[in-house]
Amino acid sequence: MNRFVVRSVMQGLINGRSYCRSSISNGQVYGAAIAGRSMQICCQQNGVIFSGFEWRRMMSSAPPSMEKAPSEKEEKKNNSATEEKKGKELSLSSYWGISRPKITREDGTDWPWNCFMPWETYRADLSIDLKKHHVPKNFVDKFAYRTVKLLRIPVDLFFQKRYGCHAMMLETVAAVPGMVAGMLLHLRSLRKFQQSGGWIKALLEEAENERMHLMTMVELVKPKWYERLLVLAVQGVYFNAFFVLYVLSPKLAHRFVGYLEEEAIHSYTEYLKGIERGGVENVPAPAIAIDYWRLPKDATLKDVITVIRADEAHHRDVNHFASDIQFQGKELRDAPAPLGYR
Amino acid sequence: MNRFVVRSVMQGLINGRSYCRSSISNGQVYGAAIAGRSMQICCQQNGVIFSGFEWRRMMSSAPPSMEKAPSEKEEKKNNSATEEKKGKELSLSSYWGISRPKITREDGTDWPWNCFMPWETYRADLSIDLKKHHVPKNFVDKFAYRTVKLLRIPVDLFFQKRYGCHAMMLETVAAVPGMVAGMLLHLRSLRKFQQSGGWIKALLEEAENERMHLMTMVELVKPKWYERLLVLAVQGVYFNAFFVLYVLSPKLAHRFVGYLEEEAIHSYTEYLKGIERGGVENVPAPAIAIDYWRLPKDATLKDVITVIRADEAHHRDVNHFASDIQFQGKELRDAPAPLGYR
Repeated sequence: MNRFVVRSVMQGLINGRSYCRSSISNGQVYGAAIAGRSMQICCQQNGVIFSGFEWRRMMSSAPPSMEKAPSEKEEKKNNSATEEKKGKELSLSSYWGISRPKITREDGTDWPWNCFMPWETYRADLSIDLKKHHVPKNFVDKFAYRTVKLLRIPVDLFFQKRYGCHAMMLETVAAVPGMVAGMLLHLRSLRKFQQSGGWIKALLEEAENERMHLMTMVELVKPKWYERLLVLAVQGVYFNAFFVLYVLSPKLAHRFVGYLEEEAIHSYTEYLKGIERGGVENVPAPAIAIDYWRLPKDATLKDVITVIRADEAHHRDVNHFASDIQFQGKELRDAPAPLGYR
Repeated sequence: MNRFVVRSVMQGLINGRSYCRSSISNGQVYGAAIAGRSMQICCQQNGVIFSGFEWRRMMSSAPPSMEKAPSEKEEKKNNSATEEKKGKELSLSSYWGISRPKITREDGTDWPWNCFMPWETYRADLSIDLKKHHVPKNFVDKFAYRTVKLLRIPVDLFFQKRYGCHAMMLETVAAVPGMVAGMLLHLRSLRKFQQSGGWIKALLEEAENERMHLMTMVELVKPKWYERLLVLAVQGVYFNAFFVLYVLSPKLAHRFVGYLEEEAIHSYTEYLKGIERGGVENVPAPAIAIDYWRLPKDATLKDVITVIRADEAHHRDVNHFASDIQFQGKELRDAPAPLGYR
């Protein structure tokens, strides 16, 4: 709670465009943090960032649609709906002492997302080299490379020019390896009483980032029933296959993901070409994407795909790097993880 | 990278005891963030927080012992060892553009940990009610409660008064449920194209926190070979059992963990009594614990066990709360997760 509030406040300051210089007192921050529920942090130029905690916001039964900045109507409906439950939930929650302060954007509006917080947002580093490629050197490299190239054929045949759908399906798969690898390193760290060098976090960050790509694509493309079915089947197979692969050869697994990310970059480049050609309408960016990548309010689909592609390029680097470390006969934890490398 | 540096800087400010008021310019921060490698952030009272990135630090092959604040000798050995590899690693790393800025404590000394960063440290909320107990109401509650009580018998028989060892073994198991639950919610979110309400992160946070307890205990107690063997067996069984349990009934799984945490609080209270009775020597706290929980330099084992117990109490609340939500016929994502609740 303490750390939570402090971070909210500090990131509130970081995000604030309107005020370039803000002064804040530790005393105040910790005071506020300990007070917990209702607090006021005063800064030189922007008065109150955080106001008192609201149960309504925290306990509102938010359907996926609510993950979008809620329309006035939705908000109203939601309030009335939760007002009824409020008493019960309040007692329940207060019994466990679980609480969350009300979080606002720098413009003072409610932070509408539960799935990510202001301090997890970032500006994608678009300067990254998209052409970078790991030339297959040995059998493991070549095996990983050929497998990825082979897998690409049926995928391209299935989706063809349905870029949005292709991207969405891609993300349901792309978010699996990071989670599997992170989990296995976590369990390994427990079994061996060993540190992880931060790689658990780095790989889980990757998985979460890929999941956010999916959450964004879902706002743009509605999956059809047979696509949902396909995801179910693919996840079942892919999760287990990758699990076994990572147990048998982490270096191959990371190399494989590295090449998958190279292909993802290619796919998103095709997507962008499709938008430029006008084959895909360059619709406004979803609210979730604007907040997650700190995009301008008038950002479009093209901007979103560009930052997603940059993310994939970063994952390519991390995974090839992880594989390289192991090819040097070292363990991942021997090289501190590229935490927050984006 | 961008977000990474900004966070380092902001947390640097938060951590700083010596300066209560620090002023920082967004322009500067982002400038530094984009510059990446070498940067200087100037604050009103504490000059430079972060200096340029050092390859040596990042690429040093750190054995677990290096996770402790390195002694001069160790540091020297490590340097000479890595100097040789430096060229090769530099080209390898710079090829993938993976980098990490040098991180320092507020007193300017190197941040010695790769497994957690300054902004992940916190002060445990010791005001939490340790006596809180969820009275079993229905069959599921009773089943969870009795199972936990039953499991306690052999554990107590095995460890008896070997508190440190007991605690360590406890943590190798305690770090599993959060990871399993977080992973399953992650996969579910991908399959169903649904938000998680932040519960993936909250549960992974719990797992990581438990793992940090283990990393601390390992500094105090060296596991024997048969204990390592036991951990191996227990993890194999427990991971799979909990996986199946969580798939079948998340509400039972969370209730079960809630009761486990209640027992953990009890065990740590016994541990503290042991220290007070003098049965266990109240040794100085390990360096890792002092940094992770922001403890005073002269903190002792007693302080460490006290903050660990507070953490367990928070996990108890979160898991009982999660179970309560599901007993209300709702999904976890309907109630935003208690992120950073500690």
